[in-house]
Amino acid sequence: MRGVFRQAPRGDVVMFAKRIDRVTRSATMELIKTTAGKGYLSFAGGLPDPRLFPVEELRAITADVLERDGAAALQYGAAEGYEPLREVAAEILTGRGLATHSEQILITCGSQQGLDLAARALLDPGDIVVIESPSYLAAIQAFDSYGVRYATVPLDPGGMEPAAAEAALAAGAKLVYALPNFQNPTGITLDGGRRVRIAEAAARSGAALIEDDAYYDLRYEGPSLTPLCALADNPWSVYLGTFSKSIAPGVRVGYVRAAVPLIERLAQLKQITDLHSGSLTQRVVNEYCRRGLLEPGIARFRQAYAARRDAMLAALETAMPPAVTWTQPNGGMFLFVTLPETLEAETLLQQAMAQGVVFVPGRTFHPDGRGGNTLRLNFVSEDESRIREGMRRMGQLLREGLSG
Amino acid sequence: MRGVFRQAPRGDVVMFAKRIDRVTRSATMELIKTTAGKGYLSFAGGLPDPRLFPVEELRAITADVLERDGAAALQYGAAEGYEPLREVAAEILTGRGLATHSEQILITCGSQQGLDLAARALLDPGDIVVIESPSYLAAIQAFDSYGVRYATVPLDPGGMEPAAAEAALAAGAKLVYALPNFQNPTGITLDGGRRVRIAEAAARSGAALIEDDAYYDLRYEGPSLTPLCALADNPWSVYLGTFSKSIAPGVRVGYVRAAVPLIERLAQLKQITDLHSGSLTQRVVNEYCRRGLLEPGIARFRQAYAARRDAMLAALETAMPPAVTWTQPNGGMFLFVTLPETLEAETLLQQAMAQGVVFVPGRTFHPDGRGGNTLRLNFVSEDESRIREGMRRMGQLLREGLSG
Repeated sequence: MRGVFRQAPRGDVVMFAKRIDRVTRSATMELIKTTAGKGYLSFAGGLPDPRLFPVEELRAITADVLERDGAAALQYGAAEGYEPLREVAAEILTGRGLATHSEQILITCGSQQGLDLAARALLDPGDIVVIESPSYLAAIQAFDSYGVRYATVPLDPGGMEPAAAEAALAAGAKLVYALPNFQNPTGITLDGGRRVRIAEAAARSGAALIEDDAYYDLRYEGPSLTPLCALADNPWSVYLGTFSKSIAPGVRVGYVRAAVPLIERLAQLKQITDLHSGSLTQRVVNEYCRRGLLEPGIARFRQAYAARRDAMLAALETAMPPAVTWTQPNGGMFLFVTLPETLEAETLLQQAMAQGVVFVPGRTFHPDGRGGNTLRLNFVSEDESRIREGMRRMGQLLREGLSG
Repeated sequence: MRGVFRQAPRGDVVMFAKRIDRVTRSATMELIKTTAGKGYLSFAGGLPDPRLFPVEELRAITADVLERDGAAALQYGAAEGYEPLREVAAEILTGRGLATHSEQILITCGSQQGLDLAARALLDPGDIVVIESPSYLAAIQAFDSYGVRYATVPLDPGGMEPAAAEAALAAGAKLVYALPNFQNPTGITLDGGRRVRIAEAAARSGAALIEDDAYYDLRYEGPSLTPLCALADNPWSVYLGTFSKSIAPGVRVGYVRAAVPLIERLAQLKQITDLHSGSLTQRVVNEYCRRGLLEPGIARFRQAYAARRDAMLAALETAMPPAVTWTQPNGGMFLFVTLPETLEAETLLQQAMAQGVVFVPGRTFHPDGRGGNTLRLNFVSEDESRIREGMRRMGQLLREGLSG
């Protein structure tokens, strides 16, 4: 009856639950952590530029909220979230072409929590998840903790290959996980026609869909595309949004949009997970949006990040040897580099760190363990001159590696 | 390969994960929700009195934090939590007789999240949890979602009966869940000698221990007792604390204390759950504590709540027929009433609501479905005169019920 004893760090008897066997830290990610705050030219993290955060606006709003509504802003709240903020989120999504009522919204601690709650509600061990390869690392880890298996779908410049997704769904996959805009880690966007095919295939086969659209607001060119969740009638579609990229991540406010019966179940899980999201921060984000600050704030992020993306694309063009290729993101925070197959990004990282440069090798984002010759670059954390210097150093290392 | 289809609300095909089968809403709790804000004399909720929240102090501190440290306070942070706040929590616990280093602390969204993460890390389906009956409702729901079975242990005025807990551990239970101080829902405190026996029994049999001490600060009389986690050397002991009762719940800041290897695993789970707790709110709570405001704030809560507890005990003495009994809490927010076995608290609730009074029937807190003749009263949400009026109305109903 005693739980199975697992692992034995530090000589202790260990008895972790089976579900967390696959939840481990990546040695590479731990290594990269050691570079924080040490002057490295860092293209590794997933951090927005904090100089763009609306600190003054949030300071004034927080003071106003506490003055006007202090007791409620510090009291327990509903698991579903603060009703006015649910209305704001519903309006935002309706504006994206995804008609939404506030009852279809659950406020979460960032979109990560929406992802974890949806997986917890929908996935049994052994279920098959259709997932882009590469995909978002913390999503893979969350799915891993629920014991799922993967049907990986390759990406090309138009996003997830729809025929592969359709085949996996026809074979009985339970859920599709898609990052439709400026995907982390590649920066690739799923094109409009494929969105229709994948949304319809999921609905037709009775599968769930999690559309993780954390980067929607960070579009630097081209028209916005309609969310997958709006393209097929699927009672098991879940849309994840966040204010982390459009206001600031440290407030930890995001939201889930789903059909009301599913939102009710997710709210029950939210309650046993952490009761509800912060009452004060929900009110601050609500007030920020209602004062009309969201769009101008997003415009500031877009302007700064677009210039950095352009700087990185130009610097790569100048610095990289011809055998190296990279994606051309229309938005977001990342682009993805493919080295010649003879090179290992983890080896390059060692060399780059010696030159004061860090990035994330791509294998960690591949649920199938591929991608040894790929790497992710964050183009928003550093300014243009540091981006140019970083690409110069990496290009030099790669030229030496390829000629050596 | 398709997930099992479960339930069919609104005619839809439903395919929720098996783990959430037992996570449902209680009809009684839903009924009680409908009374919110409608002028009822409410002894039902678990809400602190918001008039006691340190609104002005938090307003000044938030403004200062954003002025001094705005960019970091709005940026992503470490899964483990904001280091200075981890140090504060370690100091608080050391002051409670539980020697703690900051590396042993994980900051969470309230103690509820610590509970859910610890259960997620430690419990496989079918594992046996030793639990007080009655116990904290949202803990039962969280454990239910991990598919555990229960060994329920009755309470008497000294708390969990140690012989029953020891027997369950000897039979192979995996974990003990204890609410040692002013337990929710009964207000009962586990006495010192039993703490030693239960802590030692868990350690001896290699079982884990979750000590949920959310109410520690709300002691109105008697000396503080040493936490169970300090009374036996157990690498699988987990202590849950929170600032919800000592500052305000709406900030959603609590903490877990455990051995470093366990904290590391919990931090991995925290990361896939919601990345990390709010950067701003962690800094605000840290600054509140470092300015020396915590102890005076706790003193204000204690003074107000002690008077209300006294008022409720006196009103019960006056109003209740002799066959009704209740607990005598030394702290916390709740006391527990036992009716004659012929009466059903759910029936009484219907009658009481017609008289403008609400409380929570006790069956919902019993993992074993017992307690039909019990009920929980919150004595901190209403002021003394409303407490007296509420007890008068309930006493009258009970006198009529018993004579009828």
